[in-house]
Amino acid sequence: MKLEQITAELKTQQAGAAWITTPLNIFYFTGYLSDPHERLLALLIKENGEQVLFCPQLEVDEVKASPFEGEVIGFLDTENALDKYTFTVNKLLVEAEHLTVKRQRELVEAFNVQTFGDIDQTIKDLRNVKSENEIATIKKACELADKCIEIGVDFLKEGVTERQVVNHIENAIKDYGVNEMSFDTMVLFGDHAASPHGTPGDRQLQRDEYVLFDLGVIYNNYCSDMTRTVKFGEPNDKAQEIYNVVLKAEQEAIAAIKPGVTIKDVDDIARNIISDAGYGDYFPHRLGHGLGLEEHEYQDVSSSNTNQFVAGMVITVEPGIYVPDVAGVRIEDDILVTEDGNESLTGYEK
Amino acid sequence: MKLEQITAELKTQQAGAAWITTPLNIFYFTGYLSDPHERLLALLIKENGEQVLFCPQLEVDEVKASPFEGEVIGFLDTENALDKYTFTVNKLLVEAEHLTVKRQRELVEAFNVQTFGDIDQTIKDLRNVKSENEIATIKKACELADKCIEIGVDFLKEGVTERQVVNHIENAIKDYGVNEMSFDTMVLFGDHAASPHGTPGDRQLQRDEYVLFDLGVIYNNYCSDMTRTVKFGEPNDKAQEIYNVVLKAEQEAIAAIKPGVTIKDVDDIARNIISDAGYGDYFPHRLGHGLGLEEHEYQDVSSSNTNQFVAGMVITVEPGIYVPDVAGVRIEDDILVTEDGNESLTGYEK
Repeated sequence: MKLEQITAELKTQQAGAAWITTPLNIFYFTGYLSDPHERLLALLIKENGEQVLFCPQLEVDEVKASPFEGEVIGFLDTENALDKYTFTVNKLLVEAEHLTVKRQRELVEAFNVQTFGDIDQTIKDLRNVKSENEIATIKKACELADKCIEIGVDFLKEGVTERQVVNHIENAIKDYGVNEMSFDTMVLFGDHAASPHGTPGDRQLQRDEYVLFDLGVIYNNYCSDMTRTVKFGEPNDKAQEIYNVVLKAEQEAIAAIKPGVTIKDVDDIARNIISDAGYGDYFPHRLGHGLGLEEHEYQDVSSSNTNQFVAGMVITVEPGIYVPDVAGVRIEDDILVTEDGNESLTGYEK
Repeated sequence: MKLEQITAELKTQQAGAAWITTPLNIFYFTGYLSDPHERLLALLIKENGEQVLFCPQLEVDEVKASPFEGEVIGFLDTENALDKYTFTVNKLLVEAEHLTVKRQRELVEAFNVQTFGDIDQTIKDLRNVKSENEIATIKKACELADKCIEIGVDFLKEGVTERQVVNHIENAIKDYGVNEMSFDTMVLFGDHAASPHGTPGDRQLQRDEYVLFDLGVIYNNYCSDMTRTVKFGEPNDKAQEIYNVVLKAEQEAIAAIKPGVTIKDVDDIARNIISDAGYGDYFPHRLGHGLGLEEHEYQDVSSSNTNQFVAGMVITVEPGIYVPDVAGVRIEDDILVTEDGNESLTGYEK
């Protein structure tokens, strides 16, 4: 199915092969995950559907133990990988957003490529719609993120530092089999959360302020990404007002998500609620983004995206209001677009 | 000083400007560190030494608070960054190993670039020789790696799992101010260490086997990377013999390092000792690599590198022997090349 989409695109662009180099895209097609950094890792897909994986020699055994069934070309550090495979192609589709200028030069030389085309959008469109297996995996990652929030909330007490809460969450969630977070866990107290790029530090928790948690876990290579802003005591009226505006913006935006709806319209719903409440200048980012093998992936949920939602997409919805010296509030859920609406995969109370 | 090397290279290649896009290289020149992922981050250096940093609008305040003193161009997600700065250049030097095919196309369009040249090697040569500040920082990262090994060794007891030891080290070292390891900490027991790509798991420690620790910390953005293979009880004679061969290979290789010595010759010293002992087929990787802002950076310490050592380089020396079902031993130190020899920055006993 995935492969057919690539060979169909080859036909459309009259190209003889595609050259895929993003490690996560290679995983997506082969089931083999690796990031050999400066070393080459590439998947060649030919117009007849034949697949060839180029990888460092050290990884050949792992590739053979993976679900990938195509040919494997291993190379030593002292060898030129492309010299080990005889192939020429007139037009080659590449990931223009990933392939470097230097690697492109090497392809011209090795495969005698005359022209290049792009395969990026085809792969984005494929990854945009999750399979049932992918959805089940992301759902599990979301449940574990809910658990992280629960662990964090239970650990709150006066005087604890942001950094201590982060460490506690990341350590405690290991008992649930989580070895990696999707990104650096963010725990920010009170007005510190009003800095949209704040880093958890030694600030101590005081009574009557909000605590912002933004976190996610990686489960079987798929990410979750959620935010909760929870009360510790009774924050002041201004802060609570901000919270209620963000919550309304998030809930009404989510309620509008279903196949056929234009993405920017959902961003507008949240943005208008926040603007109407007088906080328009304090919501400086897009409403959300795609989620899957990456914690931020195609596509933007923003005011400029005129694409429509389709069933199988998983995206975040995360409006926020950040008023310096007052409060920073963000609420974020991971939303699966279903045939007739949507389902929130994250569930911690808000 | 760094800047002059770039403008000198511009003159040599008759180029009007350089376009630097690797986040760590931007940090190296500006003191500002950020990885905005899919968003653009780029440093333009003109032939007159003028510098312009392009970054997401959200980061502008942080850039202004950083040591960087050049012009800052911020852009919103809805804007094209390159449209916000009027500039044309005939020949532009780029990082061919980092710049993507797509970004190169955008440069052609925005700056009317006619030809491209490479700035990669110039930056590698600069970063290859560490400043006094960089050396002091790496030294501190190495001391913290020594501390990690000490913490790990103290935690060893029969029945403990590899994963538990990893978690204990990574957690305990936080009390020393370490928030990030250079890479996933590796702790492998007995014959499990014979898999060069082994992942710490639920294997339990038994008496009379070796424990392999491979770890490093990030301190002020600089990395350490060290390996120790330590006895738990008395491993069998074969395993101890392997240990002694690796130790001899490592010590003799290090003893030969000084300015003017050819890098491959040092790889040869270690490789010959291991081959002469009959384990040549069980040492499948290069002797080491450069170390600094990255845990693996330019340049290779391998059998094919004909460059010479120069004072100020920091590299790893890490021979290993991996015999399946018997033992895996690797010993790795971080070595500073000095004017008249070298100094090991890691010091844990071996």
